Amino acid sequence: MNLEAQLVEWLRANLPGGPLLEVPLGDDAAVLNPGTHSIVVTTDLLTEGVDFLLDQTSPQLVGHKALGVNLSDLAAMAARPTAAFVSLALPRTGGAGFSTLDLAIELYRGMLPLAHKHGVVIAGGDTNTWDGPLVVSITALGETTQRGPLTRTGAEVGDRLLVTGSLGGSILGRHLAVEPRVAEALLLHGQFTLHAGIDISDGLALDAWRLGEASGCGMVLDLDRIPVSVDAHELSQRDGRPAREHALADGEDFELLLAVPADAARQIVEQQPLDVPVTDIGEVIAERGLWQRSATGQKTPLQPQGWQHQAQA
Amino acid sequence: MNLEAQLVEWLRANLPGGPLLEVPLGDDAAVLNPGTHSIVVTTDLLTEGVDFLLDQTSPQLVGHKALGVNLSDLAAMAARPTAAFVSLALPRTGGAGFSTLDLAIELYRGMLPLAHKHGVVIAGGDTNTWDGPLVVSITALGETTQRGPLTRTGAEVGDRLLVTGSLGGSILGRHLAVEPRVAEALLLHGQFTLHAGIDISDGLALDAWRLGEASGCGMVLDLDRIPVSVDAHELSQRDGRPAREHALADGEDFELLLAVPADAARQIVEQQPLDVPVTDIGEVIAERGLWQRSATGQKTPLQPQGWQHQAQA
Repeated sequence: MNLEAQLVEWLRANLPGGPLLEVPLGDDAAVLNPGTHSIVVTTDLLTEGVDFLLDQTSPQLVGHKALGVNLSDLAAMAARPTAAFVSLALPRTGGAGFSTLDLAIELYRGMLPLAHKHGVVIAGGDTNTWDGPLVVSITALGETTQRGPLTRTGAEVGDRLLVTGSLGGSILGRHLAVEPRVAEALLLHGQFTLHAGIDISDGLALDAWRLGEASGCGMVLDLDRIPVSVDAHELSQRDGRPAREHALADGEDFELLLAVPADAARQIVEQQPLDVPVTDIGEVIAERGLWQRSATGQKTPLQPQGWQHQAQA
Repeated sequence: MNLEAQLVEWLRANLPGGPLLEVPLGDDAAVLNPGTHSIVVTTDLLTEGVDFLLDQTSPQLVGHKALGVNLSDLAAMAARPTAAFVSLALPRTGGAGFSTLDLAIELYRGMLPLAHKHGVVIAGGDTNTWDGPLVVSITALGETTQRGPLTRTGAEVGDRLLVTGSLGGSILGRHLAVEPRVAEALLLHGQFTLHAGIDISDGLALDAWRLGEASGCGMVLDLDRIPVSVDAHELSQRDGRPAREHALADGEDFELLLAVPADAARQIVEQQPLDVPVTDIGEVIAERGLWQRSATGQKTPLQPQGWQHQAQA
């Protein structure tokens, strides 16, 4: 039995199915039950050397990250994840001390707990071997809730900018151990009025600017309110850059940035309904562009710098 | 503006939208209208050096092939294609004489006519650059028709085996210029009773064996009836292997192999309702395995050899 057949056998034994799948694994394509809500689809491809270093990272963490970044995109749309499809280009020589087959299995072992946590069925994929480095390409499907999708385009002047968790320094580990804010997005979208949202994948500054551009508004960040992670502080001690700069520009935080009407924003910040903090860090204004406001209230332009190696078309 | 932003701009200007898309390109994920039928999903990842040679192939053909193999999988399920998602890992140095951006655009230029022909909306993707070779990963969505999906598992003893087109020698060019049998599958599935189907991606012998295994039956191929392509004859002249062997084992034909009740099979072969020939090449039997039958009626085991570099999980 060749490698791919062995992997399919492992997958059949280890992937939970579920009522979503009308046709079990192993046919030419997956067949999913039609939902009554709109279908939300996102895809992210991770490459060795750019998104992870296989000699410094366990393949399980790589698998976790590859699924996690996709679920984070679904969270940004306030969609409920349903299924994921996993395409692999595996080095013929294996990697990270594993044979090619075991490398693939380790990747899946990293995905399965995250898939289980978020109710995602791994419903298909394509397994290849080649002479190049490891590539993991995942497409995730979800469905909107009754309130419809949360897009980037609905921010309105006067909205407050809320952010989940804390930012910066994800390179110390959180960029791999992604915790997609799926449940958080669904709870907030279900219980409060949200106008627009994005997940912070390329840095607060750049993604805030994007949210503003998509909505035709400007974004003001109150610098002293930005929740700075302990990782950002640790990184600052190492490299001398202010921790807040890390929080603004590091990227791969995978937190939610939301534009929320002022009343709802106040309720959310007071109630703190999530397991992670929600912080008010600024507001939406009419004047396009990205702005910073100091503790004294002075407003100046802010460069939307950050990671730019990826783009969701 | 960085490369990815430039590509997204090109895509926005050049990708047709359509009523399927509830949210235009550029958000965190695509939002598709819910259909009333089941959702069919397939994914295929193509790598430079295995699936194509960038120094011998135009990137447009690579793009065409990457989408075509996915549509062929949807055809094998008798599903109507709706949307495709394109993830790219692009060499930083570009390739085939193109800059990185132009390489990406050429890939899309190869996909667009095929997408248009089959009514597919390219609804999203992920664009990356790296130091490795070119990787093209596409996930295609479709929907079943009123007759439901055509799977691999429904073949019954006594069914005839029908094949579209002719087989073998695709390496001479057809393996890139894939013509997915989408319309053909929809027409046959709509007008006749089909029991099971698969697209011939890894060679007639191997895929016939797979169809039999999935259905719990055996497959007999009448060797002298197999439609042998002109490419297989040409390849035979070059390498001395019998053309029929090429037709049995070469792979990447992307024709349909169908298990059809005898009455319906007779009608299809008589009526020839497609633009390509449909040929009766054998039958489904109770005894498991793959068998060949000569013109004199002698039945002997046949090795299910063929390409095995890919597996749809």
